[in-house]
Amino acid sequence: MRYKSPRLTPIGMAHTPFAEPRDVEYPRRTLGTIEIYSSYEEGLKDIEGFSHIYILWQFHKSDTRYELQFCPMREAIPPPRGLFATRSPHRVNPIALTIVRLLSRDDRILHVKGVDMVDGSPVLDIKPYTRRDRKSRISNGWLDEVERRER
Amino acid sequence: MRYKSPRLTPIGMAHTPFAEPRDVEYPRRTLGTIEIYSSYEEGLKDIEGFSHIYILWQFHKSDTRYELQFCPMREAIPPPRGLFATRSPHRVNPIALTIVRLLSRDDRILHVKGVDMVDGSPVLDIKPYTRRDRKSRISNGWLDEVERRER
Repeated sequence: MRYKSPRLTPIGMAHTPFAEPRDVEYPRRTLGTIEIYSSYEEGLKDIEGFSHIYILWQFHKSDTRYELQFCPMREAIPPPRGLFATRSPHRVNPIALTIVRLLSRDDRILHVKGVDMVDGSPVLDIKPYTRRDRKSRISNGWLDEVERRER
Repeated sequence: MRYKSPRLTPIGMAHTPFAEPRDVEYPRRTLGTIEIYSSYEEGLKDIEGFSHIYILWQFHKSDTRYELQFCPMREAIPPPRGLFATRSPHRVNPIALTIVRLLSRDDRILHVKGVDMVDGSPVLDIKPYTRRDRKSRISNGWLDEVERRER
């Protein structure tokens, strides 16, 4: 069966303090807004009940080249890591995933905390973060090694 | 700025017991495999260190129509919920997100638990689930109401 890429349609846009990918820092504490376009506003009903939501958005300003193995910036030291074991913005498909805290909603504007999007990033979807997404007894792979080393 | 939809490229395919969307049941306990195509295998390095991974995949068999408000199947009773407050497969953009438990890796085959994909679904990305994705003190919106009612 031949593969057919879907045509994506933004449902909104992220507004954040970060003009360029290199400006993104301290995302966990950074405030921003997610503006949902008016034609999709009706789909936001009930979203206020969730404290955390997933934002699927598009890396529209990142270089579209990617490497399947590389040394993540945080380390920049060998060994190189596999792309799919990282959250690098340079991916095969430019789809980003961020969990943000939903602070409040003003009609079609969501006030959120924890943004790492570049300002103006196209928002592709919002999904609720539920109790099932909170996994216990997880292992953190190479990130644990890095943390141990930094301690 | 005019929006340009990215062209998506599957990095692999999901193999599950579910032939059609209506067959998906008990996803949390269901085993499956994620086959990564050989040209992307190198990007799997270090993935074994993570107990849980996100699979971004494409709803390729779901009806592409969506409603911005509807009564979710689990309830099928009013009030209708907003699409973005549900995990319905009928979305504006047909991108699905599933957290699976990574049981083992045989080269480019990932053995996983917790699949809810239809067999043959295109896999678009894999991202590690890390400690930061485990949120505490969450609220679960309308899902909590439903659970209270079912108790």
